[in-house]
Amino acid sequence: MTMSEIDTPALVLDLTTLEQNLDSMAAHARAFGIGLRPHAKAHKSAWIATQQISRGAIGICCQKVSEAAAFVAEGFDSILISNEVVGHQKIRRMAALALSADLTFCVDDDRGLEACNDLASGSGVRLQVLIDLQGGWYRPGVASTERVVELAKQVDSFDHLQLRGLQAYNAAAQHITDFDLRTRSTVEFCERVIEAVAALNELGLDSSVVSGGGTGTYDIDPLHGPYTEIQPGSYAFMDGGYLENTDEDGKPRQDFESSLFVLTTVMSRPSSDLAIVDCGTKGISIGPGMPRVFLMSGETSEFEFVRASDEHGSIDLKGCDLSIGDRLLLVPDNVDPTVNLYDGYLGMRSGRVTETFPVTARGQVR
Amino acid sequence: MTMSEIDTPALVLDLTTLEQNLDSMAAHARAFGIGLRPHAKAHKSAWIATQQISRGAIGICCQKVSEAAAFVAEGFDSILISNEVVGHQKIRRMAALALSADLTFCVDDDRGLEACNDLASGSGVRLQVLIDLQGGWYRPGVASTERVVELAKQVDSFDHLQLRGLQAYNAAAQHITDFDLRTRSTVEFCERVIEAVAALNELGLDSSVVSGGGTGTYDIDPLHGPYTEIQPGSYAFMDGGYLENTDEDGKPRQDFESSLFVLTTVMSRPSSDLAIVDCGTKGISIGPGMPRVFLMSGETSEFEFVRASDEHGSIDLKGCDLSIGDRLLLVPDNVDPTVNLYDGYLGMRSGRVTETFPVTARGQVR
Repeated sequence: MTMSEIDTPALVLDLTTLEQNLDSMAAHARAFGIGLRPHAKAHKSAWIATQQISRGAIGICCQKVSEAAAFVAEGFDSILISNEVVGHQKIRRMAALALSADLTFCVDDDRGLEACNDLASGSGVRLQVLIDLQGGWYRPGVASTERVVELAKQVDSFDHLQLRGLQAYNAAAQHITDFDLRTRSTVEFCERVIEAVAALNELGLDSSVVSGGGTGTYDIDPLHGPYTEIQPGSYAFMDGGYLENTDEDGKPRQDFESSLFVLTTVMSRPSSDLAIVDCGTKGISIGPGMPRVFLMSGETSEFEFVRASDEHGSIDLKGCDLSIGDRLLLVPDNVDPTVNLYDGYLGMRSGRVTETFPVTARGQVR
Repeated sequence: MTMSEIDTPALVLDLTTLEQNLDSMAAHARAFGIGLRPHAKAHKSAWIATQQISRGAIGICCQKVSEAAAFVAEGFDSILISNEVVGHQKIRRMAALALSADLTFCVDDDRGLEACNDLASGSGVRLQVLIDLQGGWYRPGVASTERVVELAKQVDSFDHLQLRGLQAYNAAAQHITDFDLRTRSTVEFCERVIEAVAALNELGLDSSVVSGGGTGTYDIDPLHGPYTEIQPGSYAFMDGGYLENTDEDGKPRQDFESSLFVLTTVMSRPSSDLAIVDCGTKGISIGPGMPRVFLMSGETSEFEFVRASDEHGSIDLKGCDLSIGDRLLLVPDNVDPTVNLYDGYLGMRSGRVTETFPVTARGQVR
């Protein structure tokens, strides 16, 4: 199948670019001697996660228990649920998964630890725990070293919970576009990470895992913090949001290229300056930014995606032209919720579909 | 199963309120002597569409061919695709569906009519066509009566296309909150509809179907325009967006009540004024407005949903309190893309799940 034979909207993946992105991040982790645990919440795909593992990733991250369940079912055996797990249904399910996979989750509160321990005990497993250090005001996590230590002690006191260390994901820094400001935020956060790890060590509490780092800071965190593993996800696809970030020279970053596109068709030309495409918010995630519009050649365009309703996207032609039936490639501003809208990927090489594979954990939000 | 046993986030539907909403709209259509063709793009559910048909709806609307296919597979036999259909894959599929259902679609351009006719001919069907009158600058559709007539003549000249009339959906008016301004927009638009219908009649061109009207204007359109059917969708659920609209007295409208909620759990309390719930943009659509936060009692709350990331929602407590594990009901600002995130509904009566049914056309965006 060629690009022109694909019904739209569709999630198309340039496999050559994907592989370059995966290779680059794997090489970076090797060069820094740091573990790479890519976040599967971005791609939700067993096929892509397998590519990451085959390049040396030590496991994957998931954000939800149901997401982890989808990957355990596909045979993945080392999963960090990089999130708090609240509610008996979720904890019971996680404990059951821990029978067949090496499973770690995050904690930022002592309420619920006892119930968690009891459910783990009931399943005959020991659940591994990272204390979650808050990296942004709107995020879960604990703010102070004192609270990290208190929680770590409490976790350590339960037979069926095993303290492993710290999650320290500086969410607030990921989308600071300016490299120097992003670095400053990272350095400040890393000082908190260093302090927390030192406090755990002083008490003989396990800090052998320190996990963090996203696509915005994967190259800065390991320089300044005691990270043992990084957990970037979006780098595989490079969305519009991360393309806003600049490098050390103040230029657009070049480390990864966009590999994921939503293929769309012009379905109406209601006025001389406007084209309507067949992809709205049910086909691509809008926000914080609008999708970027690429030509079918893969080149960027002047076209501006200005508005989306549920099933329509409005494109300001900026003096250029498009005909009904013309096709465009949209780069989502945020890949994660976009991928979650689709059942499968169309993997392309040289303009032809060579692989199709499912969005394994599509809709697994529990 | 009771509400407290449901894993979250989950799409819960108050069946009693849903039925009241469905009854109200059915009664309105009967009172006006107008056909009700509810839009299935809102609920994407064969179960709910069946409830609508059983209350007298003359058929359903779909927005996409793949969505229509999902409903034809469930036995629905009168479907208006209230949208332009562009691309051979879609037209071929639509022509195949027309073998087993009464299918109408919209046209706003003559390019493609010949290919459409050929594909319909190949399937041995006659596809019914409405000319789409534009109701908002960012929408498909034609702006002038002259163009309506030109297109109608062209459609009429093809053996396998059957002109049926006009689609006249005034999208621009639906979310004008003030009743008088909404009415003014409707009246202005209806003047264009009246003019276009008169022009078709004058030439003996079929205008026996005039379809339009959404949840924002279902009660105004039939007063001012020559509508034969209305196509509201959101009324079944009443989302936050439509609750902003006022009635004739300038008060919040009371015609329909919210029946659809995303059930969510507080999973972190990182600071005194903030709660994090386990539902972000993968569990509820954000935009244009934020979700409204209801208590489990069904009452409104002071809590303000202020931010969503992919898997987290941030709630400003506004001086009130919430504990980890507490549950809340979120009313989406826009139901359509929210429903599309879920595989199924949990239908509730008196706090218990009494029906579960699938989001039949989930992800059918082609």
